[in-house]
Amino acid sequence: MATQGQINLISTPISIAAVAYEPNKPLVIEDVQVAPPQAGEVRIKILFTALCHTDAYTWSGKDPEGLFPCILGHEAAGVVESVGEGVTEVQPGDHVIPCYQAECRECKFCKSGKTNLCGKVRSATGVGVMMNDRKSRFSVNGKPIYHFMGTSTFSQYTVVHDVSVAKIDPKAPLEKVCLLGCGVPTGLGAVWNTAKVEPGSNVAIFGLGTVGLAVAEGAKTAGATRIIGIDIDSKKYETAKKFGVNEFVNPKDHQKPIQEVIVDLTDGGVDYSFECIGNVSVMRDALECCHKGWGTSVIVGVAASGQEISTRPFQLVTGRVWKGTAFGGFKSRTQVPWLVEKYMNKEIKVDEYITHSMTLGEINKAFDLLHDGTCLRCVLSTSD
Amino acid sequence: MATQGQINLISTPISIAAVAYEPNKPLVIEDVQVAPPQAGEVRIKILFTALCHTDAYTWSGKDPEGLFPCILGHEAAGVVESVGEGVTEVQPGDHVIPCYQAECRECKFCKSGKTNLCGKVRSATGVGVMMNDRKSRFSVNGKPIYHFMGTSTFSQYTVVHDVSVAKIDPKAPLEKVCLLGCGVPTGLGAVWNTAKVEPGSNVAIFGLGTVGLAVAEGAKTAGATRIIGIDIDSKKYETAKKFGVNEFVNPKDHQKPIQEVIVDLTDGGVDYSFECIGNVSVMRDALECCHKGWGTSVIVGVAASGQEISTRPFQLVTGRVWKGTAFGGFKSRTQVPWLVEKYMNKEIKVDEYITHSMTLGEINKAFDLLHDGTCLRCVLSTSD
Ligand SMILES: NC(=O)c1ccc[n+]([C@@H]2O[C@H](COP(=O)([O-])OP(=O)(O)OC[C@H]3O[C@@H](n4cnc5c(N)ncnc54)[C@H](O)[C@@H]3O)[C@@H](O)[C@H]2O)c1
Ligand SMILES: NC(=O)c1ccc[n+]([C@@H]2O[C@H](COP(=O)([O-])OP(=O)(O)OC[C@H]3O[C@@H](n4cnc5c(N)ncnc54)[C@H](O)[C@@H]3O)[C@@H](O)[C@H]2O)c1
Ligand SMILES: [Zn+2]
Ligand SMILES: [Zn+2]
Ligand SMILES: [Zn+2]
Ligand SMILES: [Zn+2]
Repeated sequence: MATQGQINLISTPISIAAVAYEPNKPLVIEDVQVAPPQAGEVRIKILFTALCHTDAYTWSGKDPEGLFPCILGHEAAGVVESVGEGVTEVQPGDHVIPCYQAECRECKFCKSGKTNLCGKVRSATGVGVMMNDRKSRFSVNGKPIYHFMGTSTFSQYTVVHDVSVAKIDPKAPLEKVCLLGCGVPTGLGAVWNTAKVEPGSNVAIFGLGTVGLAVAEGAKTAGATRIIGIDIDSKKYETAKKFGVNEFVNPKDHQKPIQEVIVDLTDGGVDYSFECIGNVSVMRDALECCHKGWGTSVIVGVAASGQEISTRPFQLVTGRVWKGTAFGGFKSRTQVPWLVEKYMNKEIKVDEYITHSMTLGEINKAFDLLHDGTCLRCVLSTSD
Repeated sequence: MATQGQINLISTPISIAAVAYEPNKPLVIEDVQVAPPQAGEVRIKILFTALCHTDAYTWSGKDPEGLFPCILGHEAAGVVESVGEGVTEVQPGDHVIPCYQAECRECKFCKSGKTNLCGKVRSATGVGVMMNDRKSRFSVNGKPIYHFMGTSTFSQYTVVHDVSVAKIDPKAPLEKVCLLGCGVPTGLGAVWNTAKVEPGSNVAIFGLGTVGLAVAEGAKTAGATRIIGIDIDSKKYETAKKFGVNEFVNPKDHQKPIQEVIVDLTDGGVDYSFECIGNVSVMRDALECCHKGWGTSVIVGVAASGQEISTRPFQLVTGRVWKGTAFGGFKSRTQVPWLVEKYMNKEIKVDEYITHSMTLGEINKAFDLLHDGTCLRCVLSTSD
């Protein structure tokens, strides 16, 4: 295996990838050169990748930190093709999920025991390059293409830092477990790790997309009693029931502000609320529908840059708590394999989020689907 | 003792009190009739009362819920003079501290095990009356005078609900422990109950008045390593050292925003911050100077009505937590006596906060002192 790694180290495979050359312009499917992994790096053959709103946000040009041209994508699964010097924890042939949230196990963050936000490679992944030489491994005709979120999975091959690779059970179906790279763990972890919902709790979930549904499933497994889904699209309730939502409110059906509706429904407010949309005004509603004295609101949705949340400080002085979560608080390398196990043991859903399947070549169509209420996750196969 | 109570029940003592007839006008010292306690009520002879900013805030007219005429005051100690029907936990002669935060031990809040915010009498205390008949026990020539915060301690006699009376060690000096009715517990509890500061933590305290100093003492006893005091009045540092503050920053000495100064000082931010001023812009600074991944900010200061806090949601998504505290999370009837014991055992300071002593007749002078940087707490004796 190590030999195979060595051989690959000298080759630069041509990879079909979807390149975002400019904000808001269709991605271009083309051949990209993917340089060999350097020290501490891993080259992965991506087999399946899903799309998530963060890809669409950066692609839209609204992300002030977005760099172009780049290869987007961060919810995927594949097989290690080759490894650079000093990489010990994976080897060619290993089945893996690339993780935009690294876990080095040695930085101040990793050692704190209080957070999953590793700081090791952020200074590079934040600006679309690799740590080693602060350069990209992607190029088209010698012109570099930026990395994205340290993952860049809209490509048949990608190079990531070794601290960003979770090695998983080789028996797991990659076309399914690719979803464990972002949205599903985010929702589950928001409940299990960030809010720590207890049995008997009342929960309100704002937004019933993939993330909101994963919150519902997390809440159900945590023993929550009332799981109230809130969405401006009433069609979402039918699917949401399968994930544990047992009451539904469409804010459009009410004259009163939604937080008052929820407070009335729950005799004073919910124990836990989750914002899974990315709308700062709903983030406020989600806080304010929490019960005085203890209600905790978790921000999961990602708002557009520059937008701010606000509330009266009295909301907090009277006992509400305002939190947020990134990747659900999961330690990626350690816990993504554990989530894969839970899926294999049928303890968590994954298949149920996949509403569409396509090929990488159809990615622009898949982006359109993100704005379509019928799509939860669309999984792209990179091999056809 | 019960007999003495019965006798008192039929008398209506004339009490000297400081009446706030109008916002922002000097309080008027005059004779007030204090009706006997009804069922579930306790009449207390107040011996000592301190002033706190909440009194000044309502007096200023800025509190939209302020009702006039009223008798202000909520940080005091005294002796039970008589009790109404059904009152079992205190009797005449008991030494007590009136508590603006009630504790009934039977409402949803009290039984939750998650908060000290009892709901039992709030519907009455919030509008200046007693639960029983929704009337006031104070009058001047037959004209009712509103209660305030369920305590109204700027009076030789007051009537409070039995769920708002903490019975304390009769050996405790009332002229000192009156401070355990508000500011000192608020600061200590913000650290011990709300933030739950651990040994080795870095702490930032915005505002070094009584509340901020009590936060410092709480942090010191909790084992915090760096206790950074922040105040626009540099004279505050000298006193603050005695309470545990071991670094000081005056925002006026810096060009950079104060949160950046603190982040730089602490290699990424503090583990815990406390806003002890009541300034919404500082509340934001206090959140944003917290360490990514785990920093927790507690709002202790009370902002003027209508003002709002704001921040970018990214601050929370990257792991900071925003909380608040009322009376430091202490369960009043249960824990105020325990705080008195701690004081008697020299485990917490109280005397050190008392910078001025006067009589109730000098209360207008005492209000002026609240805006004087040299005053922490001014204790008024009601008996001279
Ligand atoms: N914190 C993290 O680590 C993390 C990770 C992944 C995704 N996210 C974010 O989570 C959010 C949700 O992702 P998703 O994939 O589930 O999105 P989605 O678009 O599939 O779902 C959003 C849902 O919200 C509903 N909605 C929109 N506006 C609403 C309103 N005003 N009131 C009520 N409902 C409303 C929509 O109808 C939709 O059902 C996004 O902002 C995404 O960027 C965060
Ligand atoms: N949450 C509760 O239960 C509760 C209970 C009691 C008091 N409080 C509130 O706590 C706050 C503090 O009370 P206190 O008695 O200690 O007040 P104080 O006026 O004695 O102390 C405030 C301190 O803040 C400093 N300050 C003012 N503006 C500042 C700024 N911009 N930056 C830095 N420092 C600044 C002042 O110099 C002063 O030292 C008040 O808002 C009060 O209403 C809350
Ligand atoms: Zn994502
Ligand atoms: Zn790390
Ligand atoms: Zn007070
Ligand atoms: Zn109660």
